Amino acid sequence: MDQRTVFFISDQTGVTAETFGQSLLTQFDGAKFRRVTIPFVSSRVKAEEAARKINLSSEVEGKRPIVFSTLVHDDLREIVSRADGLFLDFFDAFLGPLERELEVQSSHTTGRAHGMTANSDAYQVRIEATNYALTNDDGAHVRDYGKADVILVGVSRSGKTPTCLYMAMQYGVFAANYPLTEEEFESGKLPAALDAHRDKLFGLTINARRLQQIRRERMDSGRYSTAQQVGFELREAEKLFRKFGITFIDTTEMSVEEIASTILEHTGLERRFRP
Amino acid sequence: MDQRTVFFISDQTGVTAETFGQSLLTQFDGAKFRRVTIPFVSSRVKAEEAARKINLSSEVEGKRPIVFSTLVHDDLREIVSRADGLFLDFFDAFLGPLERELEVQSSHTTGRAHGMTANSDAYQVRIEATNYALTNDDGAHVRDYGKADVILVGVSRSGKTPTCLYMAMQYGVFAANYPLTEEEFESGKLPAALDAHRDKLFGLTINARRLQQIRRERMDSGRYSTAQQVGFELREAEKLFRKFGITFIDTTEMSVEEIASTILEHTGLERRFRP
Repeated sequence: MDQRTVFFISDQTGVTAETFGQSLLTQFDGAKFRRVTIPFVSSRVKAEEAARKINLSSEVEGKRPIVFSTLVHDDLREIVSRADGLFLDFFDAFLGPLERELEVQSSHTTGRAHGMTANSDAYQVRIEATNYALTNDDGAHVRDYGKADVILVGVSRSGKTPTCLYMAMQYGVFAANYPLTEEEFESGKLPAALDAHRDKLFGLTINARRLQQIRRERMDSGRYSTAQQVGFELREAEKLFRKFGITFIDTTEMSVEEIASTILEHTGLERRFRP
Repeated sequence: MDQRTVFFISDQTGVTAETFGQSLLTQFDGAKFRRVTIPFVSSRVKAEEAARKINLSSEVEGKRPIVFSTLVHDDLREIVSRADGLFLDFFDAFLGPLERELEVQSSHTTGRAHGMTANSDAYQVRIEATNYALTNDDGAHVRDYGKADVILVGVSRSGKTPTCLYMAMQYGVFAANYPLTEEEFESGKLPAALDAHRDKLFGLTINARRLQQIRRERMDSGRYSTAQQVGFELREAEKLFRKFGITFIDTTEMSVEEIASTILEHTGLERRFRP
């Protein structure tokens, strides 16, 4: 199969069009795609410009491109849909059935990125949760664990920081994290700050070989990334998880999204929003 | 309009189903929705459990729920679609036309969240870009600006940090940021580290009243959040932007997604991936 050009076209940021298109494209493994995002297509002029780009791509490549679109306004959608591409519009497909079910007309207004405007509640929560994750990262700084929805614990480089940031940005969840080190392994205890919030603790572990590889790639040299050290830390961390009844998961084969969803599912934590 | 329950059902994390559903729901402003995500529906047993939850909700509320689903397997989709809800499946709607256009069968396999598996290139890039954003945040730490795709400059609390993190996680873009302070305002110069990468600079500004409000909410007290100080900083920052020919945007009414998309559009920067 030859290369195809894929357009993601939106009257807003294009994030929905990209998410929507990408998850469909992953179903076509062997294919090669050239990807172009055209955001903020909010006027007839811009829609016509997008249509020209689609037509040009079709002419040059001799294959019509695939167009994933999230255009709310009928007239803009109409313009882009007339271009020489396979036009797949998200609102086109689903707004009709939804309107009939809810027995109400949709607003057909350009959706500010998922209702996430700069002054909305969801937006404020996202910023606060992100700041929270940053200041309560890696056990450093003030430990404001009273405010935490969840506190991730695990050895260094087990995936705690990106997961906390992702949960903050994607769901507005307040996630802190604390790295387990020699201090905990030797004492067999949790620090008092953590112990006071034991019901919020969630453990991450990871395969020893994978952890060693990650630490080496980060150019963390010396004892820190030896097989012996990595093995020791992981064994001790899992001992602590068991001793204190901390639920834990193995992140070796998981993406950040998967770790985050799994934690939310296990804990039953409410998402503060869905962007 | 009464409250409706909305289910987001997926054989994976549910992020696509949530994004897909949320952007449709924003078209129905007046409506109230109760949202439930059911991720990892990857077996007949789990599909039947999801179907039971839908039916229960329909019985209890006397209105059938709306079901946004991203189920790749036909048999699982079949089970959930038979439940008493308005079943809107994403793959159902679009895979057919795509298969015909590409003249190939889709794999119909559970898509690991957008091809973002723990060992994939996209995943590695995301982690690296996130680490980069964290270590090159706020002008602190080593200034590894050679590796930056873009360096955001602006006064404190103008939106630099969340935007850098978002660009890293969403697009694998390496974004650093540097806060403009008295030092730059007094000298009228950029620090040498920034000056060497002037083509990568992108400015953020914000409305004075809004900035004051944000700083106060962060409990940054004293001179830092007075109208006089905020006004002074913003004027001086914009002077610097103009003096050094730095493109800048006003983030007052923008969400983080919008700031990120706008920066990518202005700079023409390539997204390293789309999750």
